[in-house]
Amino acid sequence: MTVAEHQAHPGQKVLTPGTMNNYIKNVEYAVRGRIAIRAEEIRDELDAGKKFPFERVVNCNIGNPQQLNQKPITFFRQVASLCENPDLLSDDKAPLVSQLYPSDAIARAKQLLKDIGPSIGVPAIRRTVAKFLEQRDDSVPANMNHIFLTQGASSGVQTMLSMLTQSSDTGIMIPIPQYPLYSATLSLVGATAVPYYLDEQQQWGLDVNQLTQTVTEARKNGTDVRALAIINPGNPTGQCLTKANLTDILTFCYDQQLVLLADEVYQTNIYTQARPFISFRKALLDHPIEHVKNHVELVSFHSISKGMVGECGRRGGYFECINLNQDILDQIYKMASVSLCPNIHGQILVDLMCHPPQENDPSYPIYHKEVSGIYESLKRRAQKLEAAFNAMEGVSCQPAQGSMYLFPTITLPKKAIQHAEQLGLAADAYYSEQMLEATGVCVVPGSGFGQVDGTYHFRSTFLPEEHLFDAFCSNIEAFHASFLKKYQD
Amino acid sequence: MTVAEHQAHPGQKVLTPGTMNNYIKNVEYAVRGRIAIRAEEIRDELDAGKKFPFERVVNCNIGNPQQLNQKPITFFRQVASLCENPDLLSDDKAPLVSQLYPSDAIARAKQLLKDIGPSIGVPAIRRTVAKFLEQRDDSVPANMNHIFLTQGASSGVQTMLSMLTQSSDTGIMIPIPQYPLYSATLSLVGATAVPYYLDEQQQWGLDVNQLTQTVTEARKNGTDVRALAIINPGNPTGQCLTKANLTDILTFCYDQQLVLLADEVYQTNIYTQARPFISFRKALLDHPIEHVKNHVELVSFHSISKGMVGECGRRGGYFECINLNQDILDQIYKMASVSLCPNIHGQILVDLMCHPPQENDPSYPIYHKEVSGIYESLKRRAQKLEAAFNAMEGVSCQPAQGSMYLFPTITLPKKAIQHAEQLGLAADAYYSEQMLEATGVCVVPGSGFGQVDGTYHFRSTFLPEEHLFDAFCSNIEAFHASFLKKYQD
Repeated sequence: MTVAEHQAHPGQKVLTPGTMNNYIKNVEYAVRGRIAIRAEEIRDELDAGKKFPFERVVNCNIGNPQQLNQKPITFFRQVASLCENPDLLSDDKAPLVSQLYPSDAIARAKQLLKDIGPSIGVPAIRRTVAKFLEQRDDSVPANMNHIFLTQGASSGVQTMLSMLTQSSDTGIMIPIPQYPLYSATLSLVGATAVPYYLDEQQQWGLDVNQLTQTVTEARKNGTDVRALAIINPGNPTGQCLTKANLTDILTFCYDQQLVLLADEVYQTNIYTQARPFISFRKALLDHPIEHVKNHVELVSFHSISKGMVGECGRRGGYFECINLNQDILDQIYKMASVSLCPNIHGQILVDLMCHPPQENDPSYPIYHKEVSGIYESLKRRAQKLEAAFNAMEGVSCQPAQGSMYLFPTITLPKKAIQHAEQLGLAADAYYSEQMLEATGVCVVPGSGFGQVDGTYHFRSTFLPEEHLFDAFCSNIEAFHASFLKKYQD
Repeated sequence: MTVAEHQAHPGQKVLTPGTMNNYIKNVEYAVRGRIAIRAEEIRDELDAGKKFPFERVVNCNIGNPQQLNQKPITFFRQVASLCENPDLLSDDKAPLVSQLYPSDAIARAKQLLKDIGPSIGVPAIRRTVAKFLEQRDDSVPANMNHIFLTQGASSGVQTMLSMLTQSSDTGIMIPIPQYPLYSATLSLVGATAVPYYLDEQQQWGLDVNQLTQTVTEARKNGTDVRALAIINPGNPTGQCLTKANLTDILTFCYDQQLVLLADEVYQTNIYTQARPFISFRKALLDHPIEHVKNHVELVSFHSISKGMVGECGRRGGYFECINLNQDILDQIYKMASVSLCPNIHGQILVDLMCHPPQENDPSYPIYHKEVSGIYESLKRRAQKLEAAFNAMEGVSCQPAQGSMYLFPTITLPKKAIQHAEQLGLAADAYYSEQMLEATGVCVVPGSGFGQVDGTYHFRSTFLPEEHLFDAFCSNIEAFHASFLKKYQD
């Protein structure tokens, strides 16, 4: 709308879909799309006494463990609660408080409050992260000045994608299927998504030849491809890459002059011994080719929201930069200042995640029991769900190597596809909607993540409580059989 | 850098000042600029035993009360700490916990945990905000579905400025002087700042005739002016607008088809009875002209960081929308989903700020004592600093009506201005640097906020602890006299 048009219509809205930021308008974000909204409605209707063919809504759509009743890690919350109420740390309260809190939680809270001090700068927490990286990767110490604390990994990814975008020709390689934060943020900053495909037949593996083809073609078409985003372990696909693959990818980044954005938030969600998590940081520091090691610009993201920590609601994370230009680090610092610091609670949880209770600490037995309890249960749930999917006609599901998701492919009958088309829906969106209405199970259709044309998928977490699994797996099986029957050719 | 240039230089950095997002590069943000960084250096040098003509750095540059040792409100932290560690709320812990926490804090934490539930949606907290707005403005109930919880006011302002920006022709009116969040965000989203000037001689008042001239001229020049941003009470200027002024501004917004962005984070920082805080919401709902009341699109921002709450580190706030298009509200919801929810702690603090202990609650006496203690002290400190500035030669300071800042004008000797020019510095930046080196007092030069050409100012908070005031005021006075003497004409 032009200025003249504006002024010609006093009393009309200024801010409308016609006048708003087009980049924002173009953002698509399926994880909380119409199926998720319908699931909320059904929950309210169930509460209000309406009858459905099921008793409860099961949220397999959102990767927030605590939203699915996963109990927070006791030690983390004890320390956080003491930091919140420093009065509890005064000497006169000690006789009572020592009956409520273990001594190591009290000591850690005192240390953190001293470290955080009156100031908001948290060098001590960045130091903890640096030490964690050194130990995790059995490597040289990380540089704490190249670590930035964030409100979760998402805000870090958004900062870096924005930093990289110079014009609408700027291209960022993103996996398909992908967690839609990437496509949504690229829409928002007006950059070009350069999709590369994960190979479902190779357990959602990543093929460097295909990456080379993709970048070459995009550059031929005038796209200024600058970075490669990799989610490892994968979301929604759950694969975990081998060290050989990581090494090749880094060589590719060097050859093609690409910044590597490594989203490693699922690094402790690993379910097979054959595929341990190896960080891109380790693969870079161990890289056999010296100039790759010394040159490839790597930004790796981590978060308190995933793993056994699962503290999505606290919004905490960090990213570490290797081989980045100092001026760029200064620019990141400036932007962090404009947005002010990330919330202190998220930062405290980052510290605790990176430095949990150690053997012989009073809290270690409970901490260890909680973490391994969650881990073993997640592993069992992953296997149970994978088996259930693979037992369904026309459904094939790759093994859960990592993360919190399965992404089965479904062969849908032609009639179902046509019917969905008539409704203006992607066929897997229609399938997922029908699943929700029939079973109360809420998943996210594959079309929200991207997939090879003509294939259909959905993403399901395996986060619902374990005691619900048998019931909802058999509900899905029954729904699937009746769906196939209804639309059989 | 083009694709060809990229590929011609393997091993060079991909991400450099030459290739990065220009909008980000152009962002300027003085509040944490070079003087603030120098202040940190001096603090470290003092700690390391280096001698300066002062004993401590006094941070008058940052509006974070707790960073300046303001004690958090006890009740708020008690409730937050219980929410963090729900184990404390179990029956078996009650005998101990009831000796550490008052009964209303325990009851409130239980209520909040029930309201927040396993889900991240926080309708209950938005309901608390809606009720707070109704009571504050003695008005019709606010619509909780038009309230968005945020990670502080800054992120809300960024969302709305981004939403409003359609192209580089999009214009947003911002005050000069202004808190640089506005100019920085407009740089970032690539919109045009349309500055209007606050009138220092009228106690930094806002003149609607001048607004009309400004918008008319900008539109003549092709700028698509869409919104007016007002900070009330002012930052850095501390003025508090009258209801008559608010009413006129709303009429102006209707006539000129402008969305009104009302930054009201200092609404409880009010120091003169003659100028009580009146919200734009109230002025709109009470507006004598029916079509103004029914049409002007108002977005008002609030925060837990200011007032007597001062919880900057928790990152919590909200904005309320009135008269906004439903499609736009849906778009805001979508963007909130992409960035995931604001952290739970910030949201809990918003609830507590909007619904603090009431008379007869067990925590009321302490709550009341803490809040009025902070308030009365802030008022005394504001008056003391204002008097100190006005006693200095060539310095004139408007009265502190509201907020946490004074913004005195300083008449600088020509020689000082020339000397600063030779150093490539704004004259008030040079003055502020010299003040820091001589006294340890860190302020922000007026050039960081914008000012009438040829005038010089600095912004000083009055947040340092009260017992430091006499010493640092006399240090500033001595520095000022010697600065004038050194550069006298």
